[in-house]
Amino acid sequence: MTSRLLDSLGTTDALAELFGDQSVLGRMLDLEVALARAEAAAGVIPDAAARTIASAAQAEEFDVRAIAGAAIASATPVIAFVDALVDRVRRVDEESARYVHWGATSQDVADSALALLIARARAILAPDHARVTRALRRLSDEHAATVMIGRTLLQPATPTTFGLKAAAWYAAAESSWRRLHHAFDEGATLQFGGASGTLAALGTKGPEVADALARELGLSPSTPWHTDRVRLCTLVAACGTYTGALGKIARDVSLLMQAEVGELAADGGGSSTMPQKNNPAGCAVALAAAARLPGLVATMMSAMVQEHERAVGGSQAEWPVTAEAIQATGAAVFALAGTFETLRVVPERMRANLEATRGTIYSEPIALRLRAALGREAAERIVAEALERSREGATTMLDALVSLPEVTRVVPRGDLETMMRPEAYLGAAERFRRALLGMAPVRVPA
Amino acid sequence: MTSRLLDSLGTTDALAELFGDQSVLGRMLDLEVALARAEAAAGVIPDAAARTIASAAQAEEFDVRAIAGAAIASATPVIAFVDALVDRVRRVDEESARYVHWGATSQDVADSALALLIARARAILAPDHARVTRALRRLSDEHAATVMIGRTLLQPATPTTFGLKAAAWYAAAESSWRRLHHAFDEGATLQFGGASGTLAALGTKGPEVADALARELGLSPSTPWHTDRVRLCTLVAACGTYTGALGKIARDVSLLMQAEVGELAADGGGSSTMPQKNNPAGCAVALAAAARLPGLVATMMSAMVQEHERAVGGSQAEWPVTAEAIQATGAAVFALAGTFETLRVVPERMRANLEATRGTIYSEPIALRLRAALGREAAERIVAEALERSREGATTMLDALVSLPEVTRVVPRGDLETMMRPEAYLGAAERFRRALLGMAPVRVPA
Amino acid sequence: MTSRLLDSLGTTDALAELFGDQSVLGRMLDLEVALARAEAAAGVIPDAAARTIASAAQAEEFDVRAIAGAAIASATPVIAFVDALVDRVRRVDEESARYVHWGATSQDVADSALALLIARARAILAPDHARVTRALRRLSDEHAATVMIGRTLLQPATPTTFGLKAAAWYAAAESSWRRLHHAFDEGATLQFGGASGTLAALGTKGPEVADALARELGLSPSTPWHTDRVRLCTLVAACGTYTGALGKIARDVSLLMQAEVGELAADGGGSSTMPQKNNPAGCAVALAAAARLPGLVATMMSAMVQEHERAVGGSQAEWPVTAEAIQATGAAVFALAGTFETLRVVPERMRANLEATRGTIYSEPIALRLRAALGREAAERIVAEALERSREGATTMLDALVSLPEVTRVVPRGDLETMMRPEAYLGAAERFRRALLGMAPVRVPA
Amino acid sequence: MTSRLLDSLGTTDALAELFGDQSVLGRMLDLEVALARAEAAAGVIPDAAARTIASAAQAEEFDVRAIAGAAIASATPVIAFVDALVDRVRRVDEESARYVHWGATSQDVADSALALLIARARAILAPDHARVTRALRRLSDEHAATVMIGRTLLQPATPTTFGLKAAAWYAAAESSWRRLHHAFDEGATLQFGGASGTLAALGTKGPEVADALARELGLSPSTPWHTDRVRLCTLVAACGTYTGALGKIARDVSLLMQAEVGELAADGGGSSTMPQKNNPAGCAVALAAAARLPGLVATMMSAMVQEHERAVGGSQAEWPVTAEAIQATGAAVFALAGTFETLRVVPERMRANLEATRGTIYSEPIALRLRAALGREAAERIVAEALERSREGATTMLDALVSLPEVTRVVPRGDLETMMRPEAYLGAAERFRRALLGMAPVRVPA
Repeated sequence: MTSRLLDSLGTTDALAELFGDQSVLGRMLDLEVALARAEAAAGVIPDAAARTIASAAQAEEFDVRAIAGAAIASATPVIAFVDALVDRVRRVDEESARYVHWGATSQDVADSALALLIARARAILAPDHARVTRALRRLSDEHAATVMIGRTLLQPATPTTFGLKAAAWYAAAESSWRRLHHAFDEGATLQFGGASGTLAALGTKGPEVADALARELGLSPSTPWHTDRVRLCTLVAACGTYTGALGKIARDVSLLMQAEVGELAADGGGSSTMPQKNNPAGCAVALAAAARLPGLVATMMSAMVQEHERAVGGSQAEWPVTAEAIQATGAAVFALAGTFETLRVVPERMRANLEATRGTIYSEPIALRLRAALGREAAERIVAEALERSREGATTMLDALVSLPEVTRVVPRGDLETMMRPEAYLGAAERFRRALLGMAPVRVPA
Repeated sequence: MTSRLLDSLGTTDALAELFGDQSVLGRMLDLEVALARAEAAAGVIPDAAARTIASAAQAEEFDVRAIAGAAIASATPVIAFVDALVDRVRRVDEESARYVHWGATSQDVADSALALLIARARAILAPDHARVTRALRRLSDEHAATVMIGRTLLQPATPTTFGLKAAAWYAAAESSWRRLHHAFDEGATLQFGGASGTLAALGTKGPEVADALARELGLSPSTPWHTDRVRLCTLVAACGTYTGALGKIARDVSLLMQAEVGELAADGGGSSTMPQKNNPAGCAVALAAAARLPGLVATMMSAMVQEHERAVGGSQAEWPVTAEAIQATGAAVFALAGTFETLRVVPERMRANLEATRGTIYSEPIALRLRAALGREAAERIVAEALERSREGATTMLDALVSLPEVTRVVPRGDLETMMRPEAYLGAAERFRRALLGMAPVRVPA
Repeated sequence: MTSRLLDSLGTTDALAELFGDQSVLGRMLDLEVALARAEAAAGVIPDAAARTIASAAQAEEFDVRAIAGAAIASATPVIAFVDALVDRVRRVDEESARYVHWGATSQDVADSALALLIARARAILAPDHARVTRALRRLSDEHAATVMIGRTLLQPATPTTFGLKAAAWYAAAESSWRRLHHAFDEGATLQFGGASGTLAALGTKGPEVADALARELGLSPSTPWHTDRVRLCTLVAACGTYTGALGKIARDVSLLMQAEVGELAADGGGSSTMPQKNNPAGCAVALAAAARLPGLVATMMSAMVQEHERAVGGSQAEWPVTAEAIQATGAAVFALAGTFETLRVVPERMRANLEATRGTIYSEPIALRLRAALGREAAERIVAEALERSREGATTMLDALVSLPEVTRVVPRGDLETMMRPEAYLGAAERFRRALLGMAPVRVPA
Repeated sequence: MTSRLLDSLGTTDALAELFGDQSVLGRMLDLEVALARAEAAAGVIPDAAARTIASAAQAEEFDVRAIAGAAIASATPVIAFVDALVDRVRRVDEESARYVHWGATSQDVADSALALLIARARAILAPDHARVTRALRRLSDEHAATVMIGRTLLQPATPTTFGLKAAAWYAAAESSWRRLHHAFDEGATLQFGGASGTLAALGTKGPEVADALARELGLSPSTPWHTDRVRLCTLVAACGTYTGALGKIARDVSLLMQAEVGELAADGGGSSTMPQKNNPAGCAVALAAAARLPGLVATMMSAMVQEHERAVGGSQAEWPVTAEAIQATGAAVFALAGTFETLRVVPERMRANLEATRGTIYSEPIALRLRAALGREAAERIVAEALERSREGATTMLDALVSLPEVTRVVPRGDLETMMRPEAYLGAAERFRRALLGMAPVRVPA
């Protein structure tokens, strides 16, 4: 993930800045400054040292690339970072330099900096999520009565409404977002445990300093979680589930935007050579994110198996993976929000595609009706015959059925006509739609 | 012909039975029987049909292998299953056969059967989880004061207690279990949507039948979730996170059981050729599960991107993956519970290993003390020299330090001796331990 | 993977039998029998013992479930298996029982049994692969000149031929199969190393026995590979790549089978409630496999990190994962072969869909021609205007263009007409098609 | 703003530069310049245009961030890139600008730029791989006779040699490298297909231009592989397998470096707070890479399922994932090479640890000998008794055995003494070692 260009579809400008070198270094400095302040307040280090450390902690004055380049030798960039900070503090005041990073360990810096990034990331994603869900609710309400083909295994099934479809998209996006929202909260938790997770270097003052530090940084307090990665893994998994829900929407939208389907349209992405292209670019970005997240989640879960008080390997994989997971998720929702802004529903194509099935999609109600009247075998045989006729010839399913005396003997033509109107075969579509939008209870009121 | 043997480490007898052919078929029959009853109660089908269907639904009389073998042709085993059920009902009463599977679709059967399996699975896992956490709490309490080396990157760090270590294991297992427990609840949700998710075949009675069906099966009611797989994916992800937490425990235990470490012992698994072996078999099973879950979670997340009202490919992967995830999780906690039953802590080896570091693990407090007194550079130089002497010769860190006048000038020998006792360098270990076990608040009381 | 029913879409009858309990046990017995024979031939054990062991090794007389159920306690089913074999041999002859499993270790049995299964599996997959590739070659040749829309990001691009499309499917399937074919060969390798991989129990006769054992079993000889899982992992990865190639075909076929596209048709899978359904069942099975393989490959790769001479956890995950990977791959190619057997190409729909774009898909050649003549900006403006007109009104791109004097001034109407025939804009389609089928060199002959 | 810091352990300076923005942009420009030259040579575009394009293609003059920031809108950065190049060319010569990117499509640029990066990457990895394998061969040769405990499931097994262990590490690293080496070759393949993969915009000159372009760029020629990702996926999978082999080495080394084991030592990474730490930093980096690769491979395999002539989502995930996979692999081998440079073997600790087992590790040969003499049950009982005595008391296995008359009756004390020397129980260790290093055939010479 070293290149903005290579990963231009896996982040946004805002997220690339948040997870960029200056910002990451800034959060590491935030930890060191807040630590010094909390320790000074607790009488662990001199007040002057805390002030000097704060004044020296200017992210733009550090050589980020040198720090990064030195990381492999220690399996962490934090050592070179602390050295660099000590160096800057020392230029101001040698004595203050003694108290830099006092009682902390590398992982305290790495994990807490990540927690600070996590805390900021949600604020970037939330407005785009709101744009998507607002658009979905609006689309669902506007098209509560817009009939379209339901499609299972990419083949015509019975009718549904676009309102219900959009409501189902909404419900999955919203329920997975709520989980993600909560997981972001949990992820914004202070890590502070010192060398082995006991804060022994602070004597009896560890918990007091930890509390003050959490307050200073705006993070939740916690016992050290150096090798308990449940929260972090849950966050990345929640990114995965949310992006999966967005990916489903993106897949559907891109399918409905196919020229031959034409039920949705949007101002799309161009092509470098084909002027006519109107690509579902937002969908592609969301689907690319949905393709990446499962692998990232798998890595985080594998990495949970961490040895003793700090792992060899597991924890060293988490920084970039978490950052990528959040950024790809953010890119997905940002891109999809853009898609929905210009999305146009084409009800007439929805109806035209439905009518192009020439009534065959009503085989279910017809088969059920015939089955109740004539038994299973007869019903199957009759419907199969009607389907064959309506597929081969130019005839409709209705005409095929009324030409069969076996049918009209038990189902009057008028009934058949009624059964084969999409509006008459929507069942609980509107009820489910309202329940999905939270406008109605799931259970039938007693 | 099923491969119980190939996956003998990825399930337990109880789970293999639950997810075995008879049980799965039984749950599919449960759905059909309950559906018939709910529909009869709502006046959708005749009461007699419901009774006949119930009487014909005897799992042991179905040819499971034939049903499974026919599945590929339709991308689902449900069609052959329904045919087989119709066939059995028809033998009793042709008319009742007309009402089998009335208004339902394949996915209603597949998803609801899975939900029924999920509902039963938690009851199998829960007692083993309780065995593990009970053992961990007990170990933590018994060894609250048992000192041992903290180990970071598999190298000696500062001291900790086995009580804290066990408490950290407990906390991760318990918090991830709570998530999994909740996810099991959510997973036990009825799927009932009919052909396209509108229950159109039931006219206006869909919601009423759905409610009755949920009650009959003991599942939560819901709008159809045919292509909203958030809950299912969350369940498998929660299995992954929980198994990751168990895997961490298993890794630690197996490391502490190494002959050269010897801090834990357990009645282990034998070898087919080496009688002396005492293998950490339970740990191996838990770690094997922790190796499998990430891939299973990744599959479930990839599979979330499901087309329209039923997917081509995504949903067809979920049945075996969910079943494997739950079974491997169950095998992990079952095996680990067995390990903890005979686990023996060897405090004297813990202390011996700690003492074998000859005081070098106290470099942190010594360096901090010297740094405060002499500045960063001098402290680093002095500690490095003492470390080198204590590594090369037979000398201890204490002797090396007291031989350096620079040290004794600022830190009296008595202080050094005090600093280098493990009990004196445990910081907040006990406080954190109690907080992890829920016996103390995380925050310092005001 | 304990249930045939739960995984009915992830295997075939033939593969379920191969990886079924009786077969797996049979392969484990094969190893023990061949070992005894090889050791008898080398004078390591008595000839009589080898004969008795062979006579007692009847798979159907073992209690597979008991062996499987005992596996967790030792983290391997092999110990209970050896005990059971000893027990059976002992009933015949106590002395022979002494020589069962002589000098071998559990992993020798597990890995070599897997190698024997691998050796048999390829023979099951190969005919289905041949069916697929034969069909693809035939389709490609038959439709070398059948024009259709190329589609990028699911939107109409420039024309292509179905012959080229089928050739590209062929080439990816064939090249990934060649890798898989080779990986199967490599996977069929004997594991025989004894307790720690030195065959010490056989004194100086280890290599001689190993050679004889490999010959007896029809496996490749090798140094012990107990913790070198490169070949096994490569095999599963090759399954993944091959299934990915099949998944791409399946995705395309299912998209082309959409009612609104209608360019392909096939006898599909039915529905449990909708008689009209003609589901792309074979595609769904292939896509489900393509969804599962990435996770299985990830697990195998994670599991490569195996400790010392036998892992704790890594190797214990490999048996079921390898078996599933091969079975899902086999299900994919079996199902897809079935699809291709009834696949019908509908050239008239291909042309109709192409013509329905009303010429907009020729924007590229027109833009290039105008660009060369008038410069980039003018070309872009003109084409955009023509596209807008042809999208809004009922006009074609051709009519829109000829109505613009700027265009006709530099491109005569006749040229436009020629440019907008699909046959005239196929470039190297036929050349590439032949190269993909291996009928022409990739490079232009000098 | 790029996140070099976040991923400082997942790349090296050299690889971060190769996959950095300037380099990636440079490779995209390489494609456009070479394309213009090839087209000019074929008479497709004017010579002057090719010259102007070449002169304008200065990577440092482009605003990479603007190009990256514009990517989401089109689901590719190439459109903004081409626009920027056109803009630069236009400043020099409007007419030349007409011929920029002539007949190519976005994916031609993206894929071929990636192929150029792949071609350069191998040269960066190869020397580090050579450093690792050279060190392993040397260690193996030096320690051909250095005995140590074999360890299975992290418990003492029968003896082996460090020479054999190092040879096994070597063989897995070398065989997986050979696959990776070949996969790099295959990955360095030109993509050039134009809008739909037919090169229609070049009329009949497509193949000729493609050939010239491949030559110009030093890439292998190929039919377009826009949606055939077999080679790319194979490359990333080969990175995964290779990194898995390195991860196994790293795991073993870090285990052998544990203070309580002490059989290997290396100049390790420091700690930010514990001066005594000598962390296996190189192992941690390699293991972190081994934790990431499986997820990246899974993503590439999932992404293979690409729609028609260009995917929605699948292909858009490949750039960053491939780049990360290669970089993490490079970081792993670079870090491990560093570890081996200072690695010290401690034969005396190897022997001491072996002797600390007090002979129990020879239970296998003793049990076999007793079994042949006394039968299975008696042998098991006797060895179990001797093991129990030698575990409980201070007695050795030898003393325990000779105190049992049942033993000495059939195995003279002298034999026991001989059997319990590690040198006498190495079997084919040296033979296997030489075979693994390629110094001896695998098969026994006839």
